[in-house]
Amino acid sequence: MSDTSSSTATANIGVVGLAVMGSNLARNLASREGNTVAVYNRSPERTDLLTSEHPEAEFVASKTIEEFVASLQKPRTAIIMVQAGKGTDAVISQLSDLFEEGDIIVDGGNALFTDTIRREKAARERGLNFVGAGISGGEEGALNGPSIMPGGSAEAYETLGPILASIAAVAEGEPCVTHVGTDGAGHFVKMIHNGIEYADMQLIAEAYDLIRRGTGYSPAQIADVFAEWNTGELESYLIEITAEVLRQVDAETGRPLVDVILDQAGSKGTGVWTVQTALDLGIPVSGIAEAVFARALSSKPAQRAASSSLPGPSETVAVDDPAAFIEDVRKALYASKIIAYSQGFDAIVAGAEHYGWDIKKGEIAKIWRGGCIIRARFLNRITEAYAENPGLVALVTAPYFTEAIAGTQDAWRRVVVSAVQAGIPTPAFSSSLAYYDGLRADRLPASIVQGQRDFFGAHTYKRIDKEGTFHTLWSGDRTEIESEGSSH
Amino acid sequence: MSDTSSSTATANIGVVGLAVMGSNLARNLASREGNTVAVYNRSPERTDLLTSEHPEAEFVASKTIEEFVASLQKPRTAIIMVQAGKGTDAVISQLSDLFEEGDIIVDGGNALFTDTIRREKAARERGLNFVGAGISGGEEGALNGPSIMPGGSAEAYETLGPILASIAAVAEGEPCVTHVGTDGAGHFVKMIHNGIEYADMQLIAEAYDLIRRGTGYSPAQIADVFAEWNTGELESYLIEITAEVLRQVDAETGRPLVDVILDQAGSKGTGVWTVQTALDLGIPVSGIAEAVFARALSSKPAQRAASSSLPGPSETVAVDDPAAFIEDVRKALYASKIIAYSQGFDAIVAGAEHYGWDIKKGEIAKIWRGGCIIRARFLNRITEAYAENPGLVALVTAPYFTEAIAGTQDAWRRVVVSAVQAGIPTPAFSSSLAYYDGLRADRLPASIVQGQRDFFGAHTYKRIDKEGTFHTLWSGDRTEIESEGSSH
Repeated sequence: MSDTSSSTATANIGVVGLAVMGSNLARNLASREGNTVAVYNRSPERTDLLTSEHPEAEFVASKTIEEFVASLQKPRTAIIMVQAGKGTDAVISQLSDLFEEGDIIVDGGNALFTDTIRREKAARERGLNFVGAGISGGEEGALNGPSIMPGGSAEAYETLGPILASIAAVAEGEPCVTHVGTDGAGHFVKMIHNGIEYADMQLIAEAYDLIRRGTGYSPAQIADVFAEWNTGELESYLIEITAEVLRQVDAETGRPLVDVILDQAGSKGTGVWTVQTALDLGIPVSGIAEAVFARALSSKPAQRAASSSLPGPSETVAVDDPAAFIEDVRKALYASKIIAYSQGFDAIVAGAEHYGWDIKKGEIAKIWRGGCIIRARFLNRITEAYAENPGLVALVTAPYFTEAIAGTQDAWRRVVVSAVQAGIPTPAFSSSLAYYDGLRADRLPASIVQGQRDFFGAHTYKRIDKEGTFHTLWSGDRTEIESEGSSH
Repeated sequence: MSDTSSSTATANIGVVGLAVMGSNLARNLASREGNTVAVYNRSPERTDLLTSEHPEAEFVASKTIEEFVASLQKPRTAIIMVQAGKGTDAVISQLSDLFEEGDIIVDGGNALFTDTIRREKAARERGLNFVGAGISGGEEGALNGPSIMPGGSAEAYETLGPILASIAAVAEGEPCVTHVGTDGAGHFVKMIHNGIEYADMQLIAEAYDLIRRGTGYSPAQIADVFAEWNTGELESYLIEITAEVLRQVDAETGRPLVDVILDQAGSKGTGVWTVQTALDLGIPVSGIAEAVFARALSSKPAQRAASSSLPGPSETVAVDDPAAFIEDVRKALYASKIIAYSQGFDAIVAGAEHYGWDIKKGEIAKIWRGGCIIRARFLNRITEAYAENPGLVALVTAPYFTEAIAGTQDAWRRVVVSAVQAGIPTPAFSSSLAYYDGLRADRLPASIVQGQRDFFGAHTYKRIDKEGTFHTLWSGDRTEIESEGSSH
């Protein structure tokens, strides 16, 4: 590290990487009282563009990384907003060479949390602070107030927290930012946020499909339904924008835009990460997995074309009361959404335990109430549930949610039955319900699976009536022996 | 590499690691005409135990790895049967130091295929052959004839193939072994085999649960049902042993063993690997994922206990014709099983493409007909389907399978409807059906997902009516612009 401090250090925060997200975040920072924002981009054209288009922002612009670092007050604090992966590592390396003990490097990109753990460790060994901060809300959020999920040390958060609080979204008077936990905790929670987002989007898409195919309503009519839902317990950003999308008419064809958009969903990988991580942690996140798989299936045009003449149900029953059906779908959506969030919070709990993070679940629900894609009224109910019982083992067992499920589950079942009978695919609705019935089952047929495993692989089993590990001599005299554990 | 060849080299094959699987494989090898089997274990007690208990086998036993290597004819061929992971790497390192150009190291454990790719590359750079070989069939299979899935080079297979063929299971006159593909192809296909096994076991468990709870049949009565099923198109090892497990009475309590076994299913990780790999490859393997998640859910006693009083359906309808219901369940099981295999073969196709393996799908189905856990009559139908059309894009679109689904799908739907109405969890049945309906759907609500993604993240979309990538200016005047791609 070289000494680069000087009397020209006027900025309390810097941003490296000035593509749309970085520029918007820098503008957001500059617009708040008390911030002076240093900016730097590898190619100076972007820096010039930002400063010339936004003279009101009074950025401290630098042409070199050395100048940028020199323009920062100590402890120097820089937010990296570059493409995740090698780009991030390159900038971290440059800053690490110039930063001094106690300075703070923030990665505001969508890094995989295990990369963040690795980077934090390396920075710490050099005496630097490294903070992986999940930032949700897209370009709009970056500019006007995102939900921010920073990890890293408590020491770094002392400096960084107030700066992030100055730009975060505000929900019910509170800024949507909290110190999530150490090292990779912030990016972990952001990843789970995105996983829940996948589930939520798929559930909404299934609700739309059911109403469209069940009742014959037009997209514009369904937009009205969603707008109405958005005044009740389903109130959320995703419901709101779905109504907007449904109302949009394609200027070229005069058709509803959703009928013109190719039905092949893309993805950026955070849904895949969520499911892969939950699998490692042993947490069933079936709602998120089905949403990821539904996107994957949609993007297989050759398979879908070859399968389009596969047989459907012999008879389908028409919906005779559209209003009642739509109300059932609303309830099914709410119940399925509770399950998706419940699974997501299970993954947070398991991740916190595995990686040693002290994550306050209620605080996470709080900071998701504003700025981020999954912001929703019902997050208040989650915060309340964890406030009442911080050790809650399953979200769905909190009184509010148990009551919500009790009031919706008959409708939920009717909707899945209708979908199955009509041949309408509802992987996320169906899976959430099966998960719910599995969770509450007194006995699961897992005992059959254990019996099979013991039969073919001597994997042993436990008994309900005594301690120990047992094996039946299936290819011998079929007596049971006590075993020291699985044989392989 | 040191020269360790000598006139004492009498064995054409060696086995390193003499726990149950290794010992049984060594005995299997020794029992076949033409094989002389060198054996070695780190702690010599196991070697002594094997040779003293099986004098008939005429093993060439060694106390040191050097002696072991010296006892092998060239090209030296050794099968490693030790715990996957560091143990495997240690033995590979020892053998690599002693083996010479053209010698063959075989890893017969359950290695992750990416480890096998890495090891094969390292061995190749030293002039050695490294073959990752999946071996299925458990202890019984290892002794009497497993299904073997070797990867590695074609050159190595020239030497190794006949030896493996001598010990493999035989199905309809053919040994259950084939050269799957280069480097990690064998372990990849073995991993998918295990993933399918997870799905198959879960589907059978759900079928049992439905019959038990739907009709009140006892485990012994359900054993009869399964034994009957095992004479038809469902004929398979897993159905056969499930009948055996169901028939087993616990000597201590006099109760059916399945009612005494704790209903918490364990796992060894290959199911998790399958789903994680399929997620990387973008292949929806929802049936396998739901099976993995069902095991994970079963093993959460605290969550289940807290959830056991969650509300179930207000009314449940009794099954009025048990025989008809059971026949429906049989059909639902067959249809769901077709989907599970279809998804598994999709993953094989995608893996082959991604990693550059020339995998013959029909040959894979063939070598699974005997020796392995998922051996089943219907694998012949899969072989035929790929023989008729090697470029088949989805197994379910082959005429036999389309017809099978056509004949079962009304029953499949009735069963899922019954489960949903009765509150019986059938995650794998439900998910398979939702996948099937998704596959054949003319339009999927993925267009809604694309609309949402474009709204909140400017992720762009494609249109059904022209080439290009488009974005609607949602926060502007809502006109559509052509875009060069996703903005972030």
